[in-house]
Amino acid sequence: MNSFENTSEVIAVLGGTGNLGSAIARRLAMAGRNVIIGSRTAESAENAAQALGHNARGMANADAARGADIVIVTVPFSAHEATLREIAPHVAGKLVVDTTVPLVPPKVMRVQLPKEGSAAQRAQAILGEGVSIVSGFHNVAAHKLITDEEIDCDVLIFGDEKAARERIVALAELMGMRGIHAGALANSAAAEALTSVLIFINKTYSADGAGIRLTRLHTAE
Amino acid sequence: MNSFENTSEVIAVLGGTGNLGSAIARRLAMAGRNVIIGSRTAESAENAAQALGHNARGMANADAARGADIVIVTVPFSAHEATLREIAPHVAGKLVVDTTVPLVPPKVMRVQLPKEGSAAQRAQAILGEGVSIVSGFHNVAAHKLITDEEIDCDVLIFGDEKAARERIVALAELMGMRGIHAGALANSAAAEALTSVLIFINKTYSADGAGIRLTRLHTAE
Repeated sequence: MNSFENTSEVIAVLGGTGNLGSAIARRLAMAGRNVIIGSRTAESAENAAQALGHNARGMANADAARGADIVIVTVPFSAHEATLREIAPHVAGKLVVDTTVPLVPPKVMRVQLPKEGSAAQRAQAILGEGVSIVSGFHNVAAHKLITDEEIDCDVLIFGDEKAARERIVALAELMGMRGIHAGALANSAAAEALTSVLIFINKTYSADGAGIRLTRLHTAE
Repeated sequence: MNSFENTSEVIAVLGGTGNLGSAIARRLAMAGRNVIIGSRTAESAENAAQALGHNARGMANADAARGADIVIVTVPFSAHEATLREIAPHVAGKLVVDTTVPLVPPKVMRVQLPKEGSAAQRAQAILGEGVSIVSGFHNVAAHKLITDEEIDCDVLIFGDEKAARERIVALAELMGMRGIHAGALANSAAAEALTSVLIFINKTYSADGAGIRLTRLHTAE
């Protein structure tokens, strides 16, 4: 990629004050990317942006989406549909990255995929075909991503357009992780479901943020 | 486990002349377990058993299920329902291990989970609540399992009963793999879906049997 394009591109992280969102925003900002933190209120977004530094800005989710080229959605599943409907007028022709895992409390250790097949397909249904959707980052432990530690987890990236996936595979690598092309958006069901499995495994084996690594694969790490 | 119980227990591998089934039967027989290979016809099952040796026997699927304590189902998804209906009269109170991945040709690289949520839940619906069902071995490359190579892939084991899961985690380890408790039978959707992702990854990265390893987990390997 051209580094000028990289730095001029604006990335909004919606739900950017949450655990996963703040970790993604931090890694992208530290890598020199132009980041807008989105949150329900402009005030909390601005506070988070100020705390982050690196010229990050904070805005309400809709304004953040309006001002960005890539919109990363990191809200809880309970806020998924409302957030997507709120940003829908502002993301036509843009790339939306959905990180949402359809956890349904209280049984978060049990796979409960939505009727559309996956949260990612639900996002596509809500935003329509004019929006390019990629999903990923489902299996990364947010409390590890917020640190400077190496992340011992591959990032499966799903999407129906290879070029769009490639942009997010590159972002994952910029954030210090191995991004893997994992197929169509429908395949997002695998990583979304795996998150409940990992929560179960963390509890059963007293693991601190279990992840997955693909084996027998030879890619640049 | 008590080794006397181990060796007296009879394990049927239905679809045992197929790629995955023959590999599982071979590893179990070589580990000293009492194996029956099941197939659509007794003749092909007997031939496979004779080729395998280790006192393995061959029978038609229904007879194999009748004679076994543990029944491992390794048939293609297209034969899943018919095979389960055929063995249903013979597996009450037994442990059925479903390895079926709901691949729907020609789009086998695309996740297409059945309406029940997973093949494993479909098996439970067909066999009824009187049968204990565990699922696993979805992500292991059969052409590696048939060799004596070390398998660089963890085996996620799903089931609603912990004791039943534990028996199959132990079987996976007997076969030389790390078995992992991965939660309720509903969670089988994760590993079933992941198989389509792995097929995509094999093609995209020219990998020869990509698998997964859980990270940040400390179990006996």
